[in-house]
Amino acid sequence: MSAYTLRPIGRVESVLTDRSGAPRQPDEGAPDAWLVFDDVYAPALDGLAPGLDVLLLTWLDRADRDTLAVHPRGDAARPLTGVFATRAPDRPNPIGLHDVHILAVDGPRVHVRHLEAIDGTPILDVKPHLAPGG
Amino acid sequence: MSAYTLRPIGRVESVLTDRSGAPRQPDEGAPDAWLVFDDVYAPALDGLAPGLDVLLLTWLDRADRDTLAVHPRGDAARPLTGVFATRAPDRPNPIGLHDVHILAVDGPRVHVRHLEAIDGTPILDVKPHLAPGG
Repeated sequence: MSAYTLRPIGRVESVLTDRSGAPRQPDEGAPDAWLVFDDVYAPALDGLAPGLDVLLLTWLDRADRDTLAVHPRGDAARPLTGVFATRAPDRPNPIGLHDVHILAVDGPRVHVRHLEAIDGTPILDVKPHLAPGG
Repeated sequence: MSAYTLRPIGRVESVLTDRSGAPRQPDEGAPDAWLVFDDVYAPALDGLAPGLDVLLLTWLDRADRDTLAVHPRGDAARPLTGVFATRAPDRPNPIGLHDVHILAVDGPRVHVRHLEAIDGTPILDVKPHLAPGG
């Protein structure tokens, strides 16, 4: 099959700097963070505003792309499970999907609540939520 | 910034063959479809089963990656909006995000309900839903 090339459109700025210290889910103590977009993408941000909840897609560039099965949450007592049935970061295409609440927009910088991605994580896309029932 | 390479892990098999005929949302008449994974990824599917709702990530390989703003739903009466505030397929990294219900699993083939992706669309990832509040 063909391969496709991602173009990172920005980076996460966060106090989280280490994957081992990162919470597994945002409600487990993830800090607020900044999404810093390349200036060229400023027109694509038009319409984002404080108070909106959006989906953030990132590239988990520290992930192991050859992992196909894991013990969920790293717990050896839980049975080995295919990565497509888990949210483990290690997977063939390690795309991170984060539900974030926008706190502020300052030009190409967007401040969001509770993001579990670590500092420097490449940003791929931002989307509104799926439509109800969609 | 660095670029990253996606490895398609399978393809969509659908009766939809033409982007212009594809519904914009799955509740607008999208047909059931098959997700056909490369055999090498079979271990990553372990844990997927009929009745589960999962998120499917695809690469919208017909999209225009240089589009930064659109009229939502192609309606010229609606104001030009940044693509990150819309679900338009045209965007810098055209990753499709689809909420699908699994009807059947047959080895590396997974049958899903109401998928608006067209035939041949590359598959990137499958994930469980975001945790409530996550």
